Amino acid sequence: MAITDIATRTYDHNWRLDPIVRSLLDTDFYKLLMLQMIRHLYPDVQATFSLINRTHTVRLAEVIDEGELRAQLDHARSLRFTKKELIWLAGNSFYGKRQMFSSDFIAWLADFRLPGYRLRAVDGQFELTFDGPWTHTTMWEIPALAIVNELRSRAALKDKGRFALDVLYARAKARLWEKVERLRRLPDLVISDFGTRRRHGFLWQRWCVEALKEGLGDRFIGTSNVLLAMDGDLEAIGTNAHELPMVLAALAETDEALRQAPYRVLEDWRAHYGGNLLIVLPDAFGTAAFLRDAPDWVADWTGFRPDSAPPVEAGERILAWWQAKGRDPREKLLIFSDGMDVDSIETTHRNFQGRVRMSFGWGTNLTNDFRGCDPDGQPGLEPISLVCKVTSANGRPAVKLSDNPAKATGDPAEIARYMRVFGNEGRISAHVDV
Amino acid sequence: MAITDIATRTYDHNWRLDPIVRSLLDTDFYKLLMLQMIRHLYPDVQATFSLINRTHTVRLAEVIDEGELRAQLDHARSLRFTKKELIWLAGNSFYGKRQMFSSDFIAWLADFRLPGYRLRAVDGQFELTFDGPWTHTTMWEIPALAIVNELRSRAALKDKGRFALDVLYARAKARLWEKVERLRRLPDLVISDFGTRRRHGFLWQRWCVEALKEGLGDRFIGTSNVLLAMDGDLEAIGTNAHELPMVLAALAETDEALRQAPYRVLEDWRAHYGGNLLIVLPDAFGTAAFLRDAPDWVADWTGFRPDSAPPVEAGERILAWWQAKGRDPREKLLIFSDGMDVDSIETTHRNFQGRVRMSFGWGTNLTNDFRGCDPDGQPGLEPISLVCKVTSANGRPAVKLSDNPAKATGDPAEIARYMRVFGNEGRISAHVDV
Repeated sequence: MAITDIATRTYDHNWRLDPIVRSLLDTDFYKLLMLQMIRHLYPDVQATFSLINRTHTVRLAEVIDEGELRAQLDHARSLRFTKKELIWLAGNSFYGKRQMFSSDFIAWLADFRLPGYRLRAVDGQFELTFDGPWTHTTMWEIPALAIVNELRSRAALKDKGRFALDVLYARAKARLWEKVERLRRLPDLVISDFGTRRRHGFLWQRWCVEALKEGLGDRFIGTSNVLLAMDGDLEAIGTNAHELPMVLAALAETDEALRQAPYRVLEDWRAHYGGNLLIVLPDAFGTAAFLRDAPDWVADWTGFRPDSAPPVEAGERILAWWQAKGRDPREKLLIFSDGMDVDSIETTHRNFQGRVRMSFGWGTNLTNDFRGCDPDGQPGLEPISLVCKVTSANGRPAVKLSDNPAKATGDPAEIARYMRVFGNEGRISAHVDV
Repeated sequence: MAITDIATRTYDHNWRLDPIVRSLLDTDFYKLLMLQMIRHLYPDVQATFSLINRTHTVRLAEVIDEGELRAQLDHARSLRFTKKELIWLAGNSFYGKRQMFSSDFIAWLADFRLPGYRLRAVDGQFELTFDGPWTHTTMWEIPALAIVNELRSRAALKDKGRFALDVLYARAKARLWEKVERLRRLPDLVISDFGTRRRHGFLWQRWCVEALKEGLGDRFIGTSNVLLAMDGDLEAIGTNAHELPMVLAALAETDEALRQAPYRVLEDWRAHYGGNLLIVLPDAFGTAAFLRDAPDWVADWTGFRPDSAPPVEAGERILAWWQAKGRDPREKLLIFSDGMDVDSIETTHRNFQGRVRMSFGWGTNLTNDFRGCDPDGQPGLEPISLVCKVTSANGRPAVKLSDNPAKATGDPAEIARYMRVFGNEGRISAHVDV
């Protein structure tokens, strides 16, 4: 005789919302590192973040119900850091360092909640905007992306039967495990999960992280997702993101101050975190300009995270620059994290093996690859290029150029000005899949 | 907060046995059809059935714990047909016929239980023997095979972690679904599940049957497993098996009576079931001899189930015979059920399409194909050629020759005698995988 837990079943009858984001730690680790610095150095800056769907062909507002989206965003706004979470943030070591977060910052987090949002549907897309202090709006990036992406997955799966879902997830598991078996063959691989923002869903990301832990052992060094790091006793991985140079550039009063903004970010970061976490993100306004104008001390930093140029070209350029500065790349670190998948990880690993230390941040193609998995062959599960970017700071427009013009964001007139200041050297236009 | 059903968890603490066979209907349908006839015509015949592992390299008694095997066999002996099951057998239509089972037979089934067994381990193999009235020992064939096969699967999976098991079943599901998608492309396919005896496990067979139902729709005509047919509202499929000619041959007093035994079975069958279920199983002592000596009326039967020769050769031989007898094969039926898999189904289907009606009974390669599924790459899940055959009737040895000498069973002296009576024409030795 089948035994059913009647209480659970009765609770399920009355199901109202299956929340996508259930913890403020369900975010990327770099958000917390940046937040601590922002609160310390830029507590009064106002910053607006906006959702940008670069995959115009997917009309999100026709796929996702606006009411459901509001319910999920409202639920995220109801969250607070729990005592357990704050104790873990305070007591855990990150990158081997104790007390990465000050007790003052931890106390401030205890009162933190996500600020309001503005949402409307225009021409089949959502305009989703977060206004307010940078110390608050910055924290919307990851939950907003995770919510929209998972609502899109749910919409694609809404009409599927139990059996089709079973086959779909069986195939996705088999597919990921094939990737794990290929990655196992790479000697000295160092890889981490960067897939929170573009994940198919929270539970699927958790499965993917378990798969890497089980399949890659020590070669899997951790996850950018703080909640999964805490629950799985994994390292939380990440340093900083484009929003820092973007905001500082937006605040620059002159072209010269604009040109210096990317280096000012590094000085701020070093002042705040000392000798730890010294990873340069060089491509906010173009890697070529960044390297050309960089002060010599930038070559003392631990490594670079090229994030928008093809990985081999980007890496070679940085290696040549280190060598020109008299540094030995074998003592340096490159972190590759832009749309990586097993093919590009293999190619990049082969190209640089023995020449530089390498680490891979595996994102969308880890946590949202359902190609060929739907037994009904329907569309809707392919990942889209969805981002949540800072679009203005203290009322001034924010811009990102990147090494790939297809990834540029911002006001066209401001983009033109940035192009004049930073130049167009070394940009390679490439289709942005994810 | 996670909610746990405490009662279920507490029950699980005290887990003693996870029974493999939980219903006397968890058997092949042909056993019930044969049983009704055996009880009617041969109620006093004593028949011994024995487990035979043709895959000598797998030393079953070193893989399976004898105590666990006894516990499972004992549990099967504790089973009775339930009221619901008997009502269903009495009330359901089989092959479009109502009251296939007489009320007298149903009443007799109500008191049925599996008879005793003799079990010992010799040279790494189990000697498992069932002695008693044919009306009882015949019913051990399927549960005995299902129990031994599932215990072997459990042994292979015993030390695996939760994650490895998850990947293993995900791969097996993905693998089966690839097969389903290939089979979908065959026009007018007619296929059924014949996989009870060699299944990986009961729950896995149930999943496979659901997969075929979901993926093939009307092309999936049913399952040989009576329990799954009842629970899934599917047709129960099957007619008769080698044990009928084997027992009648063993009882034959003269060589001439031996030669006539295969046709006497058909006369018995027709007398018992009228115009229904007229499927000939021609290969017990060699198809060539069977066809050569067959009375003309055999060509009036609906179809043949060639079960040990390569399917295309076997089918062509039968088609030629029908034509020689002046029958149109397009009005006849061939049922292919010997070690079929998608490749051989495709080849056979292509060869005979439009020339004869065809049906496929898909067994071991449906319900026990885990090739390449174990993430640890360990052996132990590959199916073995395990059978449970009648080995004597009223104390006289029983023999099967088949079209493939590798599938012959019985006493060597008796095999030689049978070879003299039936001849050696048309036998093709082939490796027996399953």
